[in-house]
Amino acid sequence: PYHVTWDIASAEKGGFDHFMLKEIYEQPEAIKNTMLGRIDLDKNQIDFSQEGLDQKFLEGIQRFYIVACGTSYHAGLVAKYLIERELGLPVEVDIASEFRYRNPILDEKTLFIGISQSGETADTLASLRLAKEKGAKTLSICNVVGSTIARETEVVLYTKAGPEISVASTKAFSTQVLTFVLFTFYLKQLLFGENEKKQKIEALIKLPSQLKIFIEKVHSKVKTLAQKWYQAQNALYLGRNILYPIALEGALKLKEISYIHAEGYAAGEMKHGPIALIEEKVPTVILAAKETGIVYEKTLSNAEEVRSRRGPIISLVTEGAKEFQKISDEYIEVPLTFYEFLPIFYVVPLQLLAYEIATLRGCDVDKPRNLAKSVTVE
Amino acid sequence: PYHVTWDIASAEKGGFDHFMLKEIYEQPEAIKNTMLGRIDLDKNQIDFSQEGLDQKFLEGIQRFYIVACGTSYHAGLVAKYLIERELGLPVEVDIASEFRYRNPILDEKTLFIGISQSGETADTLASLRLAKEKGAKTLSICNVVGSTIARETEVVLYTKAGPEISVASTKAFSTQVLTFVLFTFYLKQLLFGENEKKQKIEALIKLPSQLKIFIEKVHSKVKTLAQKWYQAQNALYLGRNILYPIALEGALKLKEISYIHAEGYAAGEMKHGPIALIEEKVPTVILAAKETGIVYEKTLSNAEEVRSRRGPIISLVTEGAKEFQKISDEYIEVPLTFYEFLPIFYVVPLQLLAYEIATLRGCDVDKPRNLAKSVTVE
Repeated sequence: PYHVTWDIASAEKGGFDHFMLKEIYEQPEAIKNTMLGRIDLDKNQIDFSQEGLDQKFLEGIQRFYIVACGTSYHAGLVAKYLIERELGLPVEVDIASEFRYRNPILDEKTLFIGISQSGETADTLASLRLAKEKGAKTLSICNVVGSTIARETEVVLYTKAGPEISVASTKAFSTQVLTFVLFTFYLKQLLFGENEKKQKIEALIKLPSQLKIFIEKVHSKVKTLAQKWYQAQNALYLGRNILYPIALEGALKLKEISYIHAEGYAAGEMKHGPIALIEEKVPTVILAAKETGIVYEKTLSNAEEVRSRRGPIISLVTEGAKEFQKISDEYIEVPLTFYEFLPIFYVVPLQLLAYEIATLRGCDVDKPRNLAKSVTVE
Repeated sequence: PYHVTWDIASAEKGGFDHFMLKEIYEQPEAIKNTMLGRIDLDKNQIDFSQEGLDQKFLEGIQRFYIVACGTSYHAGLVAKYLIERELGLPVEVDIASEFRYRNPILDEKTLFIGISQSGETADTLASLRLAKEKGAKTLSICNVVGSTIARETEVVLYTKAGPEISVASTKAFSTQVLTFVLFTFYLKQLLFGENEKKQKIEALIKLPSQLKIFIEKVHSKVKTLAQKWYQAQNALYLGRNILYPIALEGALKLKEISYIHAEGYAAGEMKHGPIALIEEKVPTVILAAKETGIVYEKTLSNAEEVRSRRGPIISLVTEGAKEFQKISDEYIEVPLTFYEFLPIFYVVPLQLLAYEIATLRGCDVDKPRNLAKSVTVE
């Protein structure tokens, strides 16, 4: 008999030690593919009309209801900041397992948006069906073509991340966020006749190559940093505004694969409780960006509070933020960009940090204990 | 010269070792006072008309926007479940430090509700002023009479908890929740002409005495339990539906005063990440109640998942839930009650648990490190 001595999985890692790392590195390509055919460079316009997302479909929509689980839920929180800021329409975001068992208030003026990488997440699917019963219009953001959620929604916007094998989601998340960026730009055109500035569309086009350079550059920095902090037992992740969901996502990544108890918080809430945890052994990861306006200064104050309690600080800040550098133990510089693209740049070093720490702790990165890739049962 | 050898603070503890414990025990009285003069027993009705909360004030209101920080934020999350279930009107709840720095969507059809024990919480006050600028009607739930937030809102519903000295909020929380219960009952009358059933109003009247008996009974149980678990380094708190915010609040209490890293989660989200933390040394506190309907069974499944990963379980369940008893290491029985009153009963053992654990760990319960009683600066 003929024996195959290699396993398919390792062959497909393409030189990377783990699927997770491969998938982190695939993000520029995944984002590029997700944009493909959806940007009209001549007109500075986004186009989702082929997906059936048009004026007629959106007629009468007055609010959005985004429902998801886990990492996809964090993409939904990013979308709330984006959509409310750019479109001035209210967005509610809910956890699918909560949404489906209460009596959520939505009707034909609501666009229900379900987010699921696999398109099979049980709670999200049940939420979708409930929303349809209540008369809401439905849209989904899925990665797997022809999946149940994709089939059961009126409009599907596919992320084109390719297969995601690692249990901890990375490229699915960044392409979900990108899809919401495109969605927001598109609706601004469609509903208000407003095109994005040429520079912003150009920055969008350049995003994959800029991200590629950033991943390679930041990875070695994160590796060194992980060596110093991988023995931590607890960690806090803080951010405000659009970086608040990224703090949640960064903490979730670390928790999932390294089993360190990391918790994300809106930085402004720290004084109402979590600051009690701060001490010399508990690092705080702080995300800040000048692109968020006044919130940048406020996050700096929060960082100073952590500092004055002798808590170590790992800060992620866009270029040139000397104030943060001064008070941080570790400092990761993120490229200057537009507000809308911040989440995509900020999540990358946090994915790498979780990966490197989990590896140093000897954890099974691609198959963390107790977790399944897609939760198709309740 | 004349020397005073006792300090006023200890004299005012009335036999209790700490203000926090005294305030936990004051909850039945605080709740009674908060009801006083607001219930018409003959008509089975609640009355907030003296506070200016009447038909005219509510005219045109189509949604509620609740904004708060810390423990008060958790009372707001409870209110969302209550109000949406009973009134069918949408409720959005936001963290004050996030609300004030984004461009929140609210208008004259929105009733803004700010919750603050002190009535001076800086972020909540700033949020209130922003809401007023945007034309929203405003209501506050405060404990301190004549405080800034109380003065600047059109309608104030005072909790009558009396002075709360301990930094960790207890009786302010339960009276905030009670105020929302009364608010919901009252609006049901006012907007839909529906009175509560006689039994429910009777149960409301009996709540203080029932709670008093419960506190005394459950305290010794919690003491024994704390002896076994006070050395834990991490803990999870899980609940669904109206008990989800109570899981958050229980975790916050433990975090604030014992410095154990406790985290609250919607039980259905556990499989999407936090389950990776489950191991023999990490206790999970699970809240479940038959009064929440189908969600009870779902929480039981979540408990079984924790069990199968060898995680210790401390369960709080209403009387007669044999299924939970079987799979729990510790089991606290909560009296049977109506759905609306669940949060008040469930939060008490969690307050006591945090208190007893913090005491065993030698923490300064009334003045936890890094925290202030009311956060009047950002």
